[in-house]
Amino acid sequence: MANSKRVWLFEEANATMRDELGGKGANLAEMSNIGLPVPPGFTITTDTCIAYNKSDGQFPEGLLDEIKTALAAVEAKTGKKLGDPANPLLVSVRSGAKFSMPGMMDTVLNLGLNDETAEALIKLTGNARFVYDSYRRFLMMLSDVAYSDGTNKLAKHDFEHIFYDLKKELGVTEDLDVTADQLKGLCETYKTYIKQQSGKDFPQDPFVQLQDGVEAVFKSWFNDRAKLYRQREKISDDLGTAVNIQSMVFGNQGEDCGTGVAFTRDASNGNNEIFGEYLMNAQGEDVVAGVRTPMPISELKTQNPEIYQEFADICHRLEQHYKDMQDIEFTIEHNKLYILQCRSGKRTGPSAVKIAVDLVNEGLISKEVALARINPELLDQCLHPIIKPGFKYNVLAKGLPAGPGAATGIAVFDAQRAADLGKGGEGKKVILVRADTSPDDLKGMLAAEGVLTERGGMTSHAALVARGFGIPTVAGCSDITVTDRQFVAKGGQVIKEGDYISLNGAFGEVIEGQVQVVDPELTGEFGTLLQWADETRRLGIRTNADTPEDVALAIKLGAEGVGLCRTEHMFFAEERRPVVQAMILAATEEERNAKLAELLPFQREDFKGIFEALGSRPATIRLIDPPLHEFLPSLQTLIEEVATLKAKGTTGAELEAKEKLLSQVESMHEINPMMGLRGCRLSIVFPGIVEMQTRAILEGAIAAKKAGADPHPEIMIPLVGHVNELKAVRSNLERVAKLVVEESGETIDYMFGTMIEIPRAALTSDQIAEEAEFFSFGTNDLTQMTFGFSRDDSDKFLKPYIAQKILPGDPFEAIDQTGVGQLMKISVELAKKVRPNIKLGICGEHGGEPSSIAFCHEIGLNYVSCSPYRVPIARLAAAQANLKDGGSNRDR
Amino acid sequence: MANSKRVWLFEEANATMRDELGGKGANLAEMSNIGLPVPPGFTITTDTCIAYNKSDGQFPEGLLDEIKTALAAVEAKTGKKLGDPANPLLVSVRSGAKFSMPGMMDTVLNLGLNDETAEALIKLTGNARFVYDSYRRFLMMLSDVAYSDGTNKLAKHDFEHIFYDLKKELGVTEDLDVTADQLKGLCETYKTYIKQQSGKDFPQDPFVQLQDGVEAVFKSWFNDRAKLYRQREKISDDLGTAVNIQSMVFGNQGEDCGTGVAFTRDASNGNNEIFGEYLMNAQGEDVVAGVRTPMPISELKTQNPEIYQEFADICHRLEQHYKDMQDIEFTIEHNKLYILQCRSGKRTGPSAVKIAVDLVNEGLISKEVALARINPELLDQCLHPIIKPGFKYNVLAKGLPAGPGAATGIAVFDAQRAADLGKGGEGKKVILVRADTSPDDLKGMLAAEGVLTERGGMTSHAALVARGFGIPTVAGCSDITVTDRQFVAKGGQVIKEGDYISLNGAFGEVIEGQVQVVDPELTGEFGTLLQWADETRRLGIRTNADTPEDVALAIKLGAEGVGLCRTEHMFFAEERRPVVQAMILAATEEERNAKLAELLPFQREDFKGIFEALGSRPATIRLIDPPLHEFLPSLQTLIEEVATLKAKGTTGAELEAKEKLLSQVESMHEINPMMGLRGCRLSIVFPGIVEMQTRAILEGAIAAKKAGADPHPEIMIPLVGHVNELKAVRSNLERVAKLVVEESGETIDYMFGTMIEIPRAALTSDQIAEEAEFFSFGTNDLTQMTFGFSRDDSDKFLKPYIAQKILPGDPFEAIDQTGVGQLMKISVELAKKVRPNIKLGICGEHGGEPSSIAFCHEIGLNYVSCSPYRVPIARLAAAQANLKDGGSNRDR
Repeated sequence: MANSKRVWLFEEANATMRDELGGKGANLAEMSNIGLPVPPGFTITTDTCIAYNKSDGQFPEGLLDEIKTALAAVEAKTGKKLGDPANPLLVSVRSGAKFSMPGMMDTVLNLGLNDETAEALIKLTGNARFVYDSYRRFLMMLSDVAYSDGTNKLAKHDFEHIFYDLKKELGVTEDLDVTADQLKGLCETYKTYIKQQSGKDFPQDPFVQLQDGVEAVFKSWFNDRAKLYRQREKISDDLGTAVNIQSMVFGNQGEDCGTGVAFTRDASNGNNEIFGEYLMNAQGEDVVAGVRTPMPISELKTQNPEIYQEFADICHRLEQHYKDMQDIEFTIEHNKLYILQCRSGKRTGPSAVKIAVDLVNEGLISKEVALARINPELLDQCLHPIIKPGFKYNVLAKGLPAGPGAATGIAVFDAQRAADLGKGGEGKKVILVRADTSPDDLKGMLAAEGVLTERGGMTSHAALVARGFGIPTVAGCSDITVTDRQFVAKGGQVIKEGDYISLNGAFGEVIEGQVQVVDPELTGEFGTLLQWADETRRLGIRTNADTPEDVALAIKLGAEGVGLCRTEHMFFAEERRPVVQAMILAATEEERNAKLAELLPFQREDFKGIFEALGSRPATIRLIDPPLHEFLPSLQTLIEEVATLKAKGTTGAELEAKEKLLSQVESMHEINPMMGLRGCRLSIVFPGIVEMQTRAILEGAIAAKKAGADPHPEIMIPLVGHVNELKAVRSNLERVAKLVVEESGETIDYMFGTMIEIPRAALTSDQIAEEAEFFSFGTNDLTQMTFGFSRDDSDKFLKPYIAQKILPGDPFEAIDQTGVGQLMKISVELAKKVRPNIKLGICGEHGGEPSSIAFCHEIGLNYVSCSPYRVPIARLAAAQANLKDGGSNRDR
Repeated sequence: MANSKRVWLFEEANATMRDELGGKGANLAEMSNIGLPVPPGFTITTDTCIAYNKSDGQFPEGLLDEIKTALAAVEAKTGKKLGDPANPLLVSVRSGAKFSMPGMMDTVLNLGLNDETAEALIKLTGNARFVYDSYRRFLMMLSDVAYSDGTNKLAKHDFEHIFYDLKKELGVTEDLDVTADQLKGLCETYKTYIKQQSGKDFPQDPFVQLQDGVEAVFKSWFNDRAKLYRQREKISDDLGTAVNIQSMVFGNQGEDCGTGVAFTRDASNGNNEIFGEYLMNAQGEDVVAGVRTPMPISELKTQNPEIYQEFADICHRLEQHYKDMQDIEFTIEHNKLYILQCRSGKRTGPSAVKIAVDLVNEGLISKEVALARINPELLDQCLHPIIKPGFKYNVLAKGLPAGPGAATGIAVFDAQRAADLGKGGEGKKVILVRADTSPDDLKGMLAAEGVLTERGGMTSHAALVARGFGIPTVAGCSDITVTDRQFVAKGGQVIKEGDYISLNGAFGEVIEGQVQVVDPELTGEFGTLLQWADETRRLGIRTNADTPEDVALAIKLGAEGVGLCRTEHMFFAEERRPVVQAMILAATEEERNAKLAELLPFQREDFKGIFEALGSRPATIRLIDPPLHEFLPSLQTLIEEVATLKAKGTTGAELEAKEKLLSQVESMHEINPMMGLRGCRLSIVFPGIVEMQTRAILEGAIAAKKAGADPHPEIMIPLVGHVNELKAVRSNLERVAKLVVEESGETIDYMFGTMIEIPRAALTSDQIAEEAEFFSFGTNDLTQMTFGFSRDDSDKFLKPYIAQKILPGDPFEAIDQTGVGQLMKISVELAKKVRPNIKLGICGEHGGEPSSIAFCHEIGLNYVSCSPYRVPIARLAAAQANLKDGGSNRDR
């Protein structure tokens, strides 16, 4: 580590060095080299951050010398020197990881200021107010990131409180109303306060400031919000952040100065027009933090057409250079434009799709690049519900359309409370309402259906996070005033915690009460992109659906068949439940078969409907799977009821009936039902169930055939662990199938197969493939058994496991390729040896998760199956998997 | 099949042909060939039986011709002809499988008798009574096996009832008091009865009789009692039985005739003296069925010294020939001795050991043969408890010492009732008391602690079965009279169903009430044999033990260390339980740690005791494993209690306390606890537990060291599925270990390892072996997860699975080598790649099961660990595994 170069001048590096220099550093270098107006600077590598954190905060040996050497080059270029009492250089110290993590780590601006350089700067600029404003900001920022330890009140908001008190004392409300002298006094107050809280003077030596700032950025890689963000975004903790040290330019030196953030295209809908915001006489953080509501970038055209044109040219040049939509930070210093940062712009799902398709049409990228570039999960946002057209609603207020989609929930005014009540907490639908949001609010935002902020623009923290995670969001809604646990709309309506409100993210509308929502249209660029995906993927895409309605929806979303129809879901309907209960509790085989006969017409109709909805597409139908007691009344409730009746002295028929039911339910009770009497075990112990279901499937298929469909049932046996189980069910099933064919005179082309969800089935797949014409990997159960994790109970240890990095992620979300995946591979290899053309699919929930889909492609499955709304995601993920594999033709 | 020889004359075959001809057939052939007096005959192969049963009872084409050819050779030798009206040949038709299944299948004697040959035989023998007695037996036997269909009352007991009525009518009680004419009449009655019940005449054509008899034997392979016996004895259903057709000789032609069964050595204790019984003027079945109580063989010496000497010579010759103790059936016809059968004699465990050691000392077999010959399970009988020496008890009656061991239980007089109440049923201790037993009683016998019969000798069905299964048994106890649901002892005591009695199998004693029993001595031949086993085996043998007492017992039985000490078992003691509960329900980490501190001294003492008991032997100690709620009060009981209190209107502290406890227990409740918060998951979520246990182990070891022991703890982490779990526990554990060493100034040489019981751990054993110095296969859980079978709930489907042959056996008894075993193999291979000298063991209950021990040897484990009483079995099984492997030197 000590041997490799740790500090890179912008002009020494380029855009390919993201790993070493982070995205920001690599892009600053690239932009410098293509001649854009980038203030000079240099970058400390990500490895240095890792080394620093591994050594428990030992500042790497020799690093300060390397920094000084690079600094000398910057000083030479700017003609200024750090700490020079005549012409001082000020620098920013900013984090910059390989993957963008907006607002998650620390930044220090104006570094180099001290009592002496402040005076020098006043002489140079003649603007004492600007200098002391910068100085007080610097005192606050460096203290916040480098000297605050969570207990000593040196956090940003503590400083802001002092400033607030000062303004109150002075009788002013705006920062700009505070004079240079008063700001100078504030700086003194700050320094005293720092000494008092930390026991040390604020360092006047710019090199001490620099080292402290660099260390603070290193450390911020492991702050809580950065860790949470990475966990959510699946970014490795091992990457580290680079540190960018760049000479300062100032947007806050007067009215010919300004700062802004813009996207080269509209990040919310993908329209090809520059989209962003700026503030004159402000520093960048004023825009990003959302404290002042900025102007749309289009205003700059009027206000300063020359600068606007220069900026528009740079936007075009950067898009042509990077072949992607860019997110650019700029500063205007005395009418000179500087580019401070550029990166691939975060975008909503719909805009990602539109931009990718447009870039193909513009000839900038190929279809393959377009497909490869979009995170499949983003497509989910294209499927976000919208308010039902024609539904009348009352708009309370309008703000910025910061995140698409419609959302309804109760208003909650505190991030922690939102986290407690919302997703992952009590599961209520909540809308988080805040004056503005900070990175600390992330947890509450993720738990909310939607986010509403009073302040902040389209590029504010709230908006970026909201779009990144597809949370319907209205930002910068100055029509409302947020106070403690309520907000008042401009019309005077008061919304208190717990009141229902709705958001229409796409239009920035805040709505009173609940709204009716409907599904989005799936045409235009979305349709085009998915058509390209279909042309590119090898994997087939099916859906997990149990009703004709779900089947129809999934087909609309691109499903090519049903990969899992859970027949037991058909047993839960109200009119069927008593029959199902009687069937389960039957004392004799005859009684059970009589009840099954009652169920037969229901199931037959179910299957007929599904086959009709499918037309000629295949349907994998799984015979009954769950433990039978799932259909029965709760054992615990019955115990309670019987105890209550007894204690009250009730006797006679009522008690007897309850006691009988209790004893029946008790006899069905299992200690570990997940590994109990379920799946094919039921089919073997109660063969009447298989007989009824086989009959229902085939008779349903025959009825659908008569109605014009072309049904292809694939009958699937769940929970097989030993080939003999399959043999036993098969012989029973084929006997019934033969009977149905004889009775009806119609033949149905059905297949017989099994789920692979028991480790033993995977390990003996050669034997099992002798009997099964197809396999479908039930990775939910396979994960349960392979890990020995009960999904119903794993929360208690899975959460700490993920937090403590014992597991890289939740194995029920993405396939554990090392363990569970290995069993799948073993299974595929063994099965293909015996039956080379065996049809292989997956129907666990992993079938809709992109990394798992890639894995399924890799090990040679024929299709994945997922819930209807995951179908588009799966189509794109499957295309990406085939592209990565070098393939582009379909061969399923 | 049609091409290969299906019928073999005795003189064409030999003893090596057990597979084809069954044990009986092969031995009859062998004896014929070495010149013993065997009545001529031939054998139909086992394959023919299989083919017959597979073809749904189609008599194989051409078989009758082959039989006729063989019969012609027998006729030539005997000078008689089947059905010859002048000099008719009579034959027996007997089953004979590869492995002896005494009394389980069908036999027909006197075949060839019809109205015509009966007359001929009377002329030849001048003994009409003998002929009609033989004829009526034949009518009964062939009807019973060939024409009775379970509904038409042609079973043996129906015929016996007719005979009984006749005797009543005649005013006689003994068979011998019925005259020839009366028997002739009985034959007519039987024939009429057969016609009436079956609608067909009893066949007069001897070839029809022969074919029907052969088919009946074929079919009897699949009768219920034969299937049950094979299941219990793990004999494959695919072997089939041979059919032996042999010319009859008659022990019932007069007082110079007789029949008997004898062992060349004493089958109950192994003493080297001929041991058996005979009856003059009787057919063999009279001895075997136990209807008449026979004479000891020693009486024959007095009664007919010449025949006795001839028989003794044959016994010696057969032992020398077969190099094993033999079980021989003989018949004396007019003072001429015939040998009808010989086979390796069934014996008790103690006698098996003594005979094997004696045969080595006599120079007949090698130590290796001695070791290989004994079924390790038999050793269990050597460990049978005996009545505590000096314990006073009241002997009600004395019978034959048919099965060793002492037993106590309630008297039950019906096999079905014994099955319902006893082992596998309600789990009560029962003694089955019967006048005599038949193969139909098998199920009841297996469920009983002991068996007592009024009639039948040492070779009666009851005695053979009892010894085979190690059931303490007293047979032929004429001191008692069994009537309906009670027996009366000679002293007049009446024992009714439900009264306690005891048996002292070794001495044939029937005892009033319960007795105190103690463990047997483990010296003499038993010690010698196991010493040979120790010299021969490669596998180490450890024990699963949680207390110093169990450890001491296991060491006495040959254990070389502890392979599994379940620390949680130490938490169940009465004074600890409240502390354990408080620890589990602790609201804070501090509270929990305080309770753990209270538990520390107890566990430290436990470990000290175990290390002291072990001396310098190693001990694998597993950290806490089961779900914590196992230590808590029952959730269902609490629900009931709270509901009752509420219904009664109780309020205040009592209800509140119960409700609080209920809510705490509810919060610990899991849907599938077997896959929930247990094992190392507990250690990670509640790290205080690991800290306490590590401290207790090491401080206990230090204390034991100071007391002179040389402890070698191997600390084992349960339920690991991911290497990171092991890493996390290890770093916590090593930190505490370091602390303990620093505090005490003593070092303890401990190892760190893990159980492999989660499929994922097996699949990623290379990663896990990086952290673990040893593995111990937890095959109970590994079987649960690999099959997805909850052991607590699997009864409902495992029983039908085994009955329906879906599984070859209970995978919790013998390792499923195809599935679970494959995971073990994968694990061993991966682990050895990374750590070639890794110590590998097994601590699931399979560690004491011979076929599983052989598998563990095969895949290269270092040791097996089992419960103390299984240790001798494991020692022998391990030796056998190494012999089979060609090895004899120890290299652990």
